[in-house]
Amino acid sequence: MTPTEALPKVLDHIDADLDASLARLFDFLKVQSISTDPAYADQCKRAADFVAKDLATLGLTSEIRPTGGHPLVIAKPEKQNGGPRVLFYGHYDVQPVDPLELWKTPPFDPRIEDLGNGRKIIVARGACDDKGQLMTFVEACRAWKAVTGTLPLDVTVMIEGEEECGSKSLFPFVEKNADEFKLDLALVCDTGMWSPTTPSITTSLRGLVYEDVIVTAADRDLHSGLFGGAAQNPIRVLTKALAAIHDENGRITIPDFYDGVPELPPDIKADLKALDLTPAEFLGQVGLKIPAGEQDRMLIEMISTRPTCDVNGIIGGYTGEGAKTVIASQASAKVSFRLVGNQDPVKVRDAFRDFIRARIPADCKVEFENHGLAPALQLPFDSPAILKTRQALQDEWGAKAVTVGAGGSIPIVGDFKRVLGMDTIMVGFALDDDRVHSPNEKYDLASFHKGTRSWARILAALAA
Amino acid sequence: MTPTEALPKVLDHIDADLDASLARLFDFLKVQSISTDPAYADQCKRAADFVAKDLATLGLTSEIRPTGGHPLVIAKPEKQNGGPRVLFYGHYDVQPVDPLELWKTPPFDPRIEDLGNGRKIIVARGACDDKGQLMTFVEACRAWKAVTGTLPLDVTVMIEGEEECGSKSLFPFVEKNADEFKLDLALVCDTGMWSPTTPSITTSLRGLVYEDVIVTAADRDLHSGLFGGAAQNPIRVLTKALAAIHDENGRITIPDFYDGVPELPPDIKADLKALDLTPAEFLGQVGLKIPAGEQDRMLIEMISTRPTCDVNGIIGGYTGEGAKTVIASQASAKVSFRLVGNQDPVKVRDAFRDFIRARIPADCKVEFENHGLAPALQLPFDSPAILKTRQALQDEWGAKAVTVGAGGSIPIVGDFKRVLGMDTIMVGFALDDDRVHSPNEKYDLASFHKGTRSWARILAALAA
Repeated sequence: MTPTEALPKVLDHIDADLDASLARLFDFLKVQSISTDPAYADQCKRAADFVAKDLATLGLTSEIRPTGGHPLVIAKPEKQNGGPRVLFYGHYDVQPVDPLELWKTPPFDPRIEDLGNGRKIIVARGACDDKGQLMTFVEACRAWKAVTGTLPLDVTVMIEGEEECGSKSLFPFVEKNADEFKLDLALVCDTGMWSPTTPSITTSLRGLVYEDVIVTAADRDLHSGLFGGAAQNPIRVLTKALAAIHDENGRITIPDFYDGVPELPPDIKADLKALDLTPAEFLGQVGLKIPAGEQDRMLIEMISTRPTCDVNGIIGGYTGEGAKTVIASQASAKVSFRLVGNQDPVKVRDAFRDFIRARIPADCKVEFENHGLAPALQLPFDSPAILKTRQALQDEWGAKAVTVGAGGSIPIVGDFKRVLGMDTIMVGFALDDDRVHSPNEKYDLASFHKGTRSWARILAALAA
Repeated sequence: MTPTEALPKVLDHIDADLDASLARLFDFLKVQSISTDPAYADQCKRAADFVAKDLATLGLTSEIRPTGGHPLVIAKPEKQNGGPRVLFYGHYDVQPVDPLELWKTPPFDPRIEDLGNGRKIIVARGACDDKGQLMTFVEACRAWKAVTGTLPLDVTVMIEGEEECGSKSLFPFVEKNADEFKLDLALVCDTGMWSPTTPSITTSLRGLVYEDVIVTAADRDLHSGLFGGAAQNPIRVLTKALAAIHDENGRITIPDFYDGVPELPPDIKADLKALDLTPAEFLGQVGLKIPAGEQDRMLIEMISTRPTCDVNGIIGGYTGEGAKTVIASQASAKVSFRLVGNQDPVKVRDAFRDFIRARIPADCKVEFENHGLAPALQLPFDSPAILKTRQALQDEWGAKAVTVGAGGSIPIVGDFKRVLGMDTIMVGFALDDDRVHSPNEKYDLASFHKGTRSWARILAALAA
């Protein structure tokens, strides 16, 4: 039985097994694998154990590989069967859950909610990013194994636990063990659909620079009644510096920041324009209506092909209830940049640091800590593997799959290209309203079910 | 025996009783009477009970008077003895203790530390502000009672529990019960010395406007990879608005903000200049050296006679360890203004709100909450009571007492003047390095001891 012949039976199996596959996903979602907070290190280990055990049931040789940080799970074919060899990448770690009070139900107590309009959703931290997404691939493999006794092609799986904190251990691991992972193609399920009915393949990724900035003024907190008016206030210093990053037109003012940002070819720009993404459609879903980026750009450019800067967090002084007339000793912010084209992350980081330093008074101090440095990435959009994947997605969803640029970063995909010489196909089933990284994160049941069916088809297509 | 004749014995008694008076202060300091946090309401009640019980031992009729907030303690003479009647005001509530990790020892576990240079200090939250300070007055009264069987003049005591959160209940209480408290003179011990060897009487107070500002953009937290570049970021909006408050010369740019700010008469300005307060002396003690206020003003003006604005706290987005690529839904800040002269607190508040609103994009929202609205106050500096007090202080400290303006606010002093028609003498023994409102707050043992002796002398002088 060829993969093409077996496929209908595999798809039937996925349909019949849906409840059991959901039960497995729920067990996985209950693990509180928050990677950014050291307090959850044990839970990350538990998540790695869960994945390793599960992958072993697919007929793969599964092992946990220690790193300087949270462990990696690697699973490989017992033997080489010839034909194309793929490397599937995903991550078992999830984002922090705060503010916890905004969750309708506990973030690690997964549940199905019926929205009543034909949509059911899975609600939990990680339901989408990336536990739900990576399990679509694992469940597709499980169905192949159940129906045919094996997978249709050689699959190696790499699941890390530090994607949400910059994949710090994975980069050196891949470099050191490059020979193990130089295969034919990488597959990643950590991106989104163009819309609930239009599948997409992501062929470009924005890069990332993420910096902590800590400003220190006096060597202790001060009483603003005694020192106010004379002592430098680190919140004033920090807000003044951050406020200078964007000009009134939403353009970033850091010198040379736009070096290496390409102008789109007219035909690609026309394609983007034709998608006609309106502020009402994209921003309306989150209660906004005015695009906040560069005012001379289309909204779809702002979110996919233009570099950006956001302050992701800020804290300083008294933040409790009521009033405290303090002048803080310290204030800090987390600032991230999304990069495109050939922007150099190191140059962007250094220019940013210089920009901030130039705005710090002589008797104050500024410190920086880096949490991410990844360049942007452009992948081919017409390779045979892409064309096969597009067809498989169209077969499942009944709509042409579009190739798009993604605003977010999956840093390791760049290393797959640079270190392993391997292209990546990024297919995912997240929707814009999935509340990824936010309270009440969800994943549509249809994303999970049809996502699993999609991977079953893609595996057959790539094996053919 | 006249008060003047009794005074030496009273002072001797204070010296002999020092250890016991410290033990009483320590019991008081152990009560965690943080008024801004509702979680500590019971502790505030405990502090009120402590004070009421203690005042009853002075031969006063002591009672706890409920308010809408934390209770007031009122103690009155059992009968009128003729002669001047004074009202002593203080507060039993203290500031929050965060950041707790910066305390060398627990904030409510008072201790004596020997600095080894002849100075001993009392370390605890409230050691200075205002438990230590108010107990200098109470201990002076106790000594008078012990030595002479009575107080040298009619003393009414009013100790509130909401000074650190704006004295919200005290204002209506004083208005409603004005007849009870219309006496001859108010005394307050909540201010500082000019230096460790120079006592001072505070004759002007800056007013206060304190506002919470909450900016809301999207109706949920967003992933900066998906929405970055398109969605408005409330931290960006807030930092831009706050950064606009001060210009490059440290001047506040809010329209009409300086209305009602008087220029000092040349002779007063000359007096201030003669004090020769240097940045090294005043800012050097906290690790700074460059005055941050209006660049065309003397440092001593910045901290006493000029209005100021400080951001006392700011928070938004992810503030934990590591990286989270979120665009927050909300960001907020606490902003306070110190007022002088005839600045109208309501006008300043409204002008500030207009200033911020004008900087909020059309699809974002801003809300305000007020935590304080008090005008500045100027008291006479040559009344007979002031002259007597200056002499008493000089007798104790061996140095001429200076009359100064204070940067901080004691809002109720304004009401004593406006509602009760009564001047206030503000004498206190705090030092600039007392870390009031900060971790490791302290009060010099000399401040406590000689402060008690100072009040014993002032009471005798006012009775004469």
